[in-house]
Amino acid sequence: MITIEPIGYVRSPRGDLRDDDWGSVSSSIELDAAFSPECLDGIEEFSHAEIVFLFDRVAPARVERGTRHPRGNPAWPRVGIFAQRAKDRPNRIGTTIVEIVGRDGRSLHVRGLDAIDGTPVLDVKPIMAEFLPRSGVRQPQWSHELMHEYWTVTPRRRDG
Amino acid sequence: MITIEPIGYVRSPRGDLRDDDWGSVSSSIELDAAFSPECLDGIEEFSHAEIVFLFDRVAPARVERGTRHPRGNPAWPRVGIFAQRAKDRPNRIGTTIVEIVGRDGRSLHVRGLDAIDGTPVLDVKPIMAEFLPRSGVRQPQWSHELMHEYWTVTPRRRDG
Repeated sequence: MITIEPIGYVRSPRGDLRDDDWGSVSSSIELDAAFSPECLDGIEEFSHAEIVFLFDRVAPARVERGTRHPRGNPAWPRVGIFAQRAKDRPNRIGTTIVEIVGRDGRSLHVRGLDAIDGTPVLDVKPIMAEFLPRSGVRQPQWSHELMHEYWTVTPRRRDG
Repeated sequence: MITIEPIGYVRSPRGDLRDDDWGSVSSSIELDAAFSPECLDGIEEFSHAEIVFLFDRVAPARVERGTRHPRGNPAWPRVGIFAQRAKDRPNRIGTTIVEIVGRDGRSLHVRGLDAIDGTPVLDVKPIMAEFLPRSGVRQPQWSHELMHEYWTVTPRRRDG
C-alpha cells in the first residue's frame, strides 16, 4: 500500500461529469499552501504540462478490473481496462496533457483539462517533445470514434 | 490522504539508476495475480502505452518541494520541481510513454521504459493521438540539452 497526498485541487467552471466538449474549458490548479509559489518557477517556458489527478468521484466499488465496453457502448469492442482510458480504473488515476496559459502565486492556469472542479491533483509535469511517442501512433478505430467530440470547443458564454 | 496499490511491477534488465540510454531497454510489466489476463485485452491494437509508476527508491525525505537545478547541474537554471521531471518529486509518480511490443498472460512487453527492475506500476493507459498535444510544443533549451542522450540506443549485448 502506498500513501499519496494531493498537491492541490482543480478549480474549474465545470462541476458535472460529462464525456465530451472539454476543449474550451479553462481551469486552474491551486497548489496546497504547503507549497511555495517557487515550485512552479520556469513552467511558463513550457507550452504544455501533464496533469496527474485522481478520479475521486468514482466509488472504489465501481472500479473495473476486467473488461468493459468503452463508455458502455456495445458498438465498440469489449476491451481490458488497461486498453482504455475509462475513469473507473484501478487506482483511479487520470493523466491529461493541457496547455499552460499562465500562473500567479500558487495557481497554474491551464486549458483543456478534463477534470471537474474539486478534483485532487497528484502531480504536474512539463511536456518535453522527447517524452512524446518517438514513432508513429497506431490505435483502433473505436478509439477515434470515442474521441470524436471529446475536445470540441463549444461557443464561450459571454460573462460581461 | 489517498491509498493506492501497485497493479504490478516492472521486470527489467536494468537494475541501476542511470540518467541516460533508456531507448534500448526492453522490459515487462507483470500484473499482480489479482488481475486476470483479460484486463489487457485489446492493448495490442495500440502502438504505445503510458506507464504510470512510483519512484519507490526515492526516500521520502529526499523529495524536493521547491526549486533545484535539473540533475544538480548549475549550468541549467534553477527551476521549480513542477517545471522539471526529476524523480525526487512530491508523490514520486513517474509517467512514461513506451512502445508496446506484445503481451502474454499477465505480462505486457514494452520498449523504452525508464524504470528499473522492481518498480511498482500504478496504471497502464493506451496512447490515443487525440490525447497528445493539440498545438505545437515549446520548451526551454535546458530541457533539450538534458534529454540529449536520454533515449540513446546503446549497442545490444549478444546473449547467444
